[in-house]
Amino acid sequence: MRIALVIGSTVSTIKDEALRGRKLLIVRAADTEGKPTGEPYIAVDTVSAGTGDLVIVTEGSSARYTGLTQNASVDSVIVGVIDSLESGGKFTYQKQ
Amino acid sequence: MRIALVIGSTVSTIKDEALRGRKLLIVRAADTEGKPTGEPYIAVDTVSAGTGDLVIVTEGSSARYTGLTQNASVDSVIVGVIDSLESGGKFTYQKQ
Amino acid sequence: MRIALVIGSTVSTIKDEALRGRKLLIVRAADTEGKPTGEPYIAVDTVSAGTGDLVIVTEGSSARYTGLTQNASVDSVIVGVIDSLESGGKFTYQKQ
Amino acid sequence: MRIALVIGSTVSTIKDEALRGRKLLIVRAADTEGKPTGEPYIAVDTVSAGTGDLVIVTEGSSARYTGLTQNASVDSVIVGVIDSLESGGKFTYQKQ
Amino acid sequence: MRIALVIGSTVSTIKDEALRGRKLLIVRAADTEGKPTGEPYIAVDTVSAGTGDLVIVTEGSSARYTGLTQNASVDSVIVGVIDSLESGGKFTYQKQ
Repeated sequence: MRIALVIGSTVSTIKDEALRGRKLLIVRAADTEGKPTGEPYIAVDTVSAGTGDLVIVTEGSSARYTGLTQNASVDSVIVGVIDSLESGGKFTYQKQ
Repeated sequence: MRIALVIGSTVSTIKDEALRGRKLLIVRAADTEGKPTGEPYIAVDTVSAGTGDLVIVTEGSSARYTGLTQNASVDSVIVGVIDSLESGGKFTYQKQ
Repeated sequence: MRIALVIGSTVSTIKDEALRGRKLLIVRAADTEGKPTGEPYIAVDTVSAGTGDLVIVTEGSSARYTGLTQNASVDSVIVGVIDSLESGGKFTYQKQ
Repeated sequence: MRIALVIGSTVSTIKDEALRGRKLLIVRAADTEGKPTGEPYIAVDTVSAGTGDLVIVTEGSSARYTGLTQNASVDSVIVGVIDSLESGGKFTYQKQ
Repeated sequence: MRIALVIGSTVSTIKDEALRGRKLLIVRAADTEGKPTGEPYIAVDTVSAGTGDLVIVTEGSSARYTGLTQNASVDSVIVGVIDSLESGGKFTYQKQ
């Protein structure tokens, strides 16, 4: 799963029942210090995340395997908020 | 899901029943201001999108999880038209 | 789905029943003018395509969702031959 | 599957039942000598791996096909610890 | 599917029943002349391939669709040995 930083949100016109009403956030892949490194893309929020949170994003078919996204046409879902990352024996990121 | 800009369309000869008759648009991945950044590819339209629209594209197996693409051999589908994108506390894109 | 150019074919020794006997073509991702831009890879032909054709390739699990590839161990399938591509209000490619 | 080096771990707040309680490690893709070459990402541990181990990571839908990850919203899982890699007729990596 | 060159093998400690005992080879994506171009990764052998063979690798969920990999946590499987590749009207690769 990706380490990603939430950078914003989107308002969209969506027809599909299973996807409509879901909170769609804009995220970017991040490194172990929480700095964004990738291009922005959209992920469905299932954990009440917000801008500035470092999160875990599951991609592909497994994005449909949460209670809020079953059978929905989604390929990226936020499944957790990261509290801390440890690498090389020390904390590289800790949630404020 | 990807933020993508619709840049054109394609006419093709398709044998498969489930895919035939679907509107196939050409899209490019875009940034949070709606500027295209990626290579062109083809996505099935399910929301009556048109050239110039900024859209949400779902990829992979989840592209089959819309009413118009069930069990079709498709890997990219337009699931929404973006009305606005907000990043860093301000609107970076608003539909005209 | 990808816009791709057929550049050749392969002869292979395959054990799997579901895949054996399928025509395996070599394709490269292409731009909206039909010029190849990507690395060569192999796709199963389901539309009687040939070298020089610009085609639509479906990838991932959806490659199994054609009549010729059901339950086969394939991840790329040619689902259509492109007749024309239109981008920016003009035709960028038309089949000869 | 990827050859990957375990470089750390993460503590996260996760709602989903199927994913909660799983050990989430930080890994980087590695070459045949075990040197990390890719960006860090998160994989579910199913083999009691630890920092410094060279492991095999399965990605995509198949990450759900282990006893510990069935029907969980995960896209990367550690399925094995690498004891040795052989390339070009000699050992390029051997576990200490 | 990818054109790939077998460059080595791996010995690993694997817990999962469906994956244990499978031959795991190291492969690199290759061009139409059989020269390796990509980073090394691991694929399950189902065709008795060996180092130096040019092979066809299926990736993603379809890697589970061979007789030897059903329901296994694998994302890359060797499904064929390439006898010859033809591109631009001439043979670019022929098995010795």
